[in-house]
Amino acid sequence: MITKVGCPLCTSDGGQVIYRDGGCRVVIAEEAVQTGVCRVILDDHVAEMTDLSVERRGHLMALVFATEAAVRAALHPDKVNLASLGNQVPHLHWHVIPRFYDDAHFPDPIWASPRRTARARRIDTETIRRSLRDTLAGGEGS
Amino acid sequence: MITKVGCPLCTSDGGQVIYRDGGCRVVIAEEAVQTGVCRVILDDHVAEMTDLSVERRGHLMALVFATEAAVRAALHPDKVNLASLGNQVPHLHWHVIPRFYDDAHFPDPIWASPRRTARARRIDTETIRRSLRDTLAGGEGS
Repeated sequence: MITKVGCPLCTSDGGQVIYRDGGCRVVIAEEAVQTGVCRVILDDHVAEMTDLSVERRGHLMALVFATEAAVRAALHPDKVNLASLGNQVPHLHWHVIPRFYDDAHFPDPIWASPRRTARARRIDTETIRRSLRDTLAGGEGS
Repeated sequence: MITKVGCPLCTSDGGQVIYRDGGCRVVIAEEAVQTGVCRVILDDHVAEMTDLSVERRGHLMALVFATEAAVRAALHPDKVNLASLGNQVPHLHWHVIPRFYDDAHFPDPIWASPRRTARARRIDTETIRRSLRDTLAGGEGS
């Protein structure tokens, strides 16, 4: 595995792992500003999607879409936001962000200033985990 | 084509078109806060990636990655940000955002409050267009 000293995604899981395969992991981002945010993280320290082979891009995106499907099935968000930024941590990780009309930032991105105080939402991690496994078992996103 | 009355991406191109195929278009987002931002827009009015068939997702992402490769070749950014949000306009469009260490928001997302005034950057649209065509002709992102 390609790792980089000091990279937090090389030295830690980056959240509560709900799925792992030979090259990637899916985590619940427990510290996120928005509840229910998942991240799909490449295990190797690579900065950009176009640094990966077409096959590895496809594998990573299949997991992103499987996670989107799981988040939709588990949380029924009003919208899903997908983003690969990596400005602070240039190690490929995709944010899969369930959005709700009454969340703190809607309709702005979650990185903008909040518009309101959102009501607390209970996120059932086990439901997301089960949905992700069902989705992958069903071939979704492959 | 599936369209929706009142959707700005159904009723207009959404920027200066630099590439178009049977299902998608790539535009330079001339009004964007950040110079050099491209958008890859599905022609049909569809909200989420997991509303598309696996084949159509793959086609759209291949164009996103070809655009990333073109933006990298043309502008040599320090980082690329990719995002599909659609909170304001729930019609699939991917932002391909070249980031520079000295841009107005780095290392924050471009939707956060700016940290500084960025120097003006001249963006050569023709170079991005040519890079995109070269990339697609070379099979990149396919």
